Amino acid sequence: MKAVIRDATPSDMPQVLHCIKELARFEKEPDAVAISVETLLEEGFGERPIFHCFVAERSEEIVGIALVYFRFSTWKGRTLHLEDLIVTQDQRGKGIGKALYQRVIQYAYEQGVQRLEWVVLDWNQGAIDFYEHSGATLLKDWYLAQMEPHAMKAYLDRNT
Amino acid sequence: MKAVIRDATPSDMPQVLHCIKELARFEKEPDAVAISVETLLEEGFGERPIFHCFVAERSEEIVGIALVYFRFSTWKGRTLHLEDLIVTQDQRGKGIGKALYQRVIQYAYEQGVQRLEWVVLDWNQGAIDFYEHSGATLLKDWYLAQMEPHAMKAYLDRNT
Repeated sequence: MKAVIRDATPSDMPQVLHCIKELARFEKEPDAVAISVETLLEEGFGERPIFHCFVAERSEEIVGIALVYFRFSTWKGRTLHLEDLIVTQDQRGKGIGKALYQRVIQYAYEQGVQRLEWVVLDWNQGAIDFYEHSGATLLKDWYLAQMEPHAMKAYLDRNT
Repeated sequence: MKAVIRDATPSDMPQVLHCIKELARFEKEPDAVAISVETLLEEGFGERPIFHCFVAERSEEIVGIALVYFRFSTWKGRTLHLEDLIVTQDQRGKGIGKALYQRVIQYAYEQGVQRLEWVVLDWNQGAIDFYEHSGATLLKDWYLAQMEPHAMKAYLDRNT
């Protein structure tokens, strides 16, 4: 039976979180997932949702997710960011990732955004080849900068 | 007279666009700015604003901008992305960029986000040093992937 790709509902969120945590365990960072089901419900289904989630369902089980949200480019206008595309380990190699990827591209195109964007690790050659073959362009001369709350606090304490 | 950092209003948008276009000309991509004042008004001040803009004002003139929006990490929850921080050319070297940067950090901290993030070109050593000194961490092993509308269309045509 093929997996069905559909919009996630609030009642999917426990299984969605399960997918996120499984991936974190696989990446040897089991404690990195600080969010809860409540976080997903608040941020995805509240008064002002900041993300949209697709799920792949097979036999009433969530076997994959794709999570996207809008961003804004001062050159291009509204863009769509693909934050995560996950297929549970025992369901890989069945075309589920590709079906989710295609749904995200369709959504981006329907929404009329000027760009779909995401990030990929520079050593993940399989993914890089797949993305480039699908028509994506890779920008290799940017670094991601991140500041955590404790660093924000320290900076503000030093400068105010 | 010091520049004042404040939230942008709809009536600032023509001058904000002017800053964006000046930077694009400086970067030798004068035609890259596809957005209009209407885009900024719709996306920043409509029913569901997707960005927040700060401006630096001196003598009733906008001399710098910082544009931010929320993102969502499946590990961390809500984060804030700094999309652009611009100081007009003839006003550089006066601490305006630093004042905007500090305001953005303060905003991120007040909003309780789990991370402030942005990107920087890998050859821009002056900026990299400034960011690292301020407490940011740079991730150097990611590529940015982008897909334009014509490539979305081509992918969908091939796969549906």
